[in-house]
Amino acid sequence: MVARFTENPIIKTQDVAPSRPDMVVEGALNPGVFSFRGLTWLLLRIAERPVQVAGKVTFPIIGADGAVKILEFEEGDPDIDLSDPRLVKYKKTVYLSTLSHLGLVCSEDGIHFRSPDFIPGKIFGEGTMETFGIEDCRVSQIEGRYYLTYTQVSEHGVGVGLMSTQDWAHFKRHGMILPPHNKDCAIFEEKINGRYFCLHRPSGIGLGGNYIWLSESDDLEKWGGHHCLMHTRKGMWDCERVGAGAAPIRTPKGWLVIYHGADETSRYCLGAALLDLDDPRKVIARSEKPFMEPTAEYEKKGFFGNVVFMNGHLVDGDELTIYYGASDKVVCGARTSISGLLAKLRYF
Amino acid sequence: MVARFTENPIIKTQDVAPSRPDMVVEGALNPGVFSFRGLTWLLLRIAERPVQVAGKVTFPIIGADGAVKILEFEEGDPDIDLSDPRLVKYKKTVYLSTLSHLGLVCSEDGIHFRSPDFIPGKIFGEGTMETFGIEDCRVSQIEGRYYLTYTQVSEHGVGVGLMSTQDWAHFKRHGMILPPHNKDCAIFEEKINGRYFCLHRPSGIGLGGNYIWLSESDDLEKWGGHHCLMHTRKGMWDCERVGAGAAPIRTPKGWLVIYHGADETSRYCLGAALLDLDDPRKVIARSEKPFMEPTAEYEKKGFFGNVVFMNGHLVDGDELTIYYGASDKVVCGARTSISGLLAKLRYF
Repeated sequence: MVARFTENPIIKTQDVAPSRPDMVVEGALNPGVFSFRGLTWLLLRIAERPVQVAGKVTFPIIGADGAVKILEFEEGDPDIDLSDPRLVKYKKTVYLSTLSHLGLVCSEDGIHFRSPDFIPGKIFGEGTMETFGIEDCRVSQIEGRYYLTYTQVSEHGVGVGLMSTQDWAHFKRHGMILPPHNKDCAIFEEKINGRYFCLHRPSGIGLGGNYIWLSESDDLEKWGGHHCLMHTRKGMWDCERVGAGAAPIRTPKGWLVIYHGADETSRYCLGAALLDLDDPRKVIARSEKPFMEPTAEYEKKGFFGNVVFMNGHLVDGDELTIYYGASDKVVCGARTSISGLLAKLRYF
Repeated sequence: MVARFTENPIIKTQDVAPSRPDMVVEGALNPGVFSFRGLTWLLLRIAERPVQVAGKVTFPIIGADGAVKILEFEEGDPDIDLSDPRLVKYKKTVYLSTLSHLGLVCSEDGIHFRSPDFIPGKIFGEGTMETFGIEDCRVSQIEGRYYLTYTQVSEHGVGVGLMSTQDWAHFKRHGMILPPHNKDCAIFEEKINGRYFCLHRPSGIGLGGNYIWLSESDDLEKWGGHHCLMHTRKGMWDCERVGAGAAPIRTPKGWLVIYHGADETSRYCLGAALLDLDDPRKVIARSEKPFMEPTAEYEKKGFFGNVVFMNGHLVDGDELTIYYGASDKVVCGARTSISGLLAKLRYF
């Protein structure tokens, strides 16, 4: 039912130039997707780390002056915990092993991508809320403007940032729109009953969990009416974490939401849910089984294996083209049909 | 420097009637404070649990129909964890041992309180976000209306709810204004540069911590511009958690914020901080040591001991009257001076 591109992975780490000569690209992953000037665009998350030196553990952060700073620990230090490749834990302090920025690539055919030649094409973290980088950007096109919701990471926590642009050369930064701990924010591309809506994924502590929530706004900057929409499900493929993919897709049956679910082994799969067109607080249907699981070699092994993670897709009639991160390392593509996804849902 | 009321505790659990005959009041604590019709008012958190039956562990939640429902486990069940008196943990699911609602009491002298006779005086949780109760309400008076920010607790998580009233008989419910995991929200009582501001306490997972944040709004319902204001401090009395008390107090030197800090043993003390009058993102000064610690017997022992927790105060010139929860059990009062608090801060 899902046809992976035969060209997968379509973007590998070696296809992306590092931002500095002393950095290595560890991952080109989790792209936002949009159409602009007749081309297909991916807004990649580019995760970099310093060229590693024997005997040292080094990782980058953005300093108070806005420049990248390399922090360094001794490799043998008993206070360092590197058990999760994504993190550097030192005593009670947590850092990321890589620093991510966003990078644009474009394509005529949606398969072969290149760097753009008429815009800068790189977006870096700025300010105190983004010192550990910016990640996993969703792009929603609303009233002729592109709205980018992305993960802001810093010592202060993990929240959702918003920026917007019309020309992809000039950006307005709207600050943090959802406070920690929050990720996976996708804004609906049209108003419902006069209001903007978004999906997002706050995390509970003790009570609650990693669930998908729905919120409302009048201006896209300030959000309220937070409502819990979809839980994880015990004993299923999405038992530990769920999070929205890209902007929900309007279909005659309802808003189709592609979402990721992870189980207790952090295996990430893709499923779908359907929300009422007039009242998106109502979940009408949901996948019993994932429609896409990490089965290809490049999905099972990488920087963090057994992951298919989707935060961008293109709709063309009934055809849905999914661009997804595989194993937190590379970008892949796959095609499926919207009617096929709708037919496989379990209606409540 | 802080003069506790000689009458402390001024409200004990036996002073509050349970909401049903089969319930026991376990705590009357953490009051919001305000003036109304020439009286001093406390909006208590009233924590109740069912009369316990031998061999059973019972606790209340609010059911889908809005009525209180008693859940029950066998006492000897090896899957039950009651090590924290505030929680009932069953396998991976967490419940609260008590169900809280809010209750009004009023006073002529600010020391002796009684139930009001002209308004209902009880506010219960409503809807799916409040099935485990409502807690720890701050009251801000803004443009002639009272705004109540409180903790909404449910299986979906812990967030900040807002309701408002003019007459304390009719309430408008504005929904959840800050998504999980969030508590300790206090709204400034006047606009700054044309916008409303609040303090709140989101919690980080892995990255970040239990820090005080500042946010902005145009309508008090939808919030954005989330900014991390104050961290916990390693090795100090506020090393594990900090959270704002009531609405910041305007002084000529800046906005005075009374906040609670907890250490790694969950000992809760009170300290203060000062924010720039025109730009509350700037922290000008902060307490090195708490100005109030749990030292009295009723502060050291109770439902959850070694706690002084403040979410309501009254300002009268230089005199600050603090109403606080002691040991998650009773309400106490204390007086101090604003100039004295300001003089003891460490300016940066």
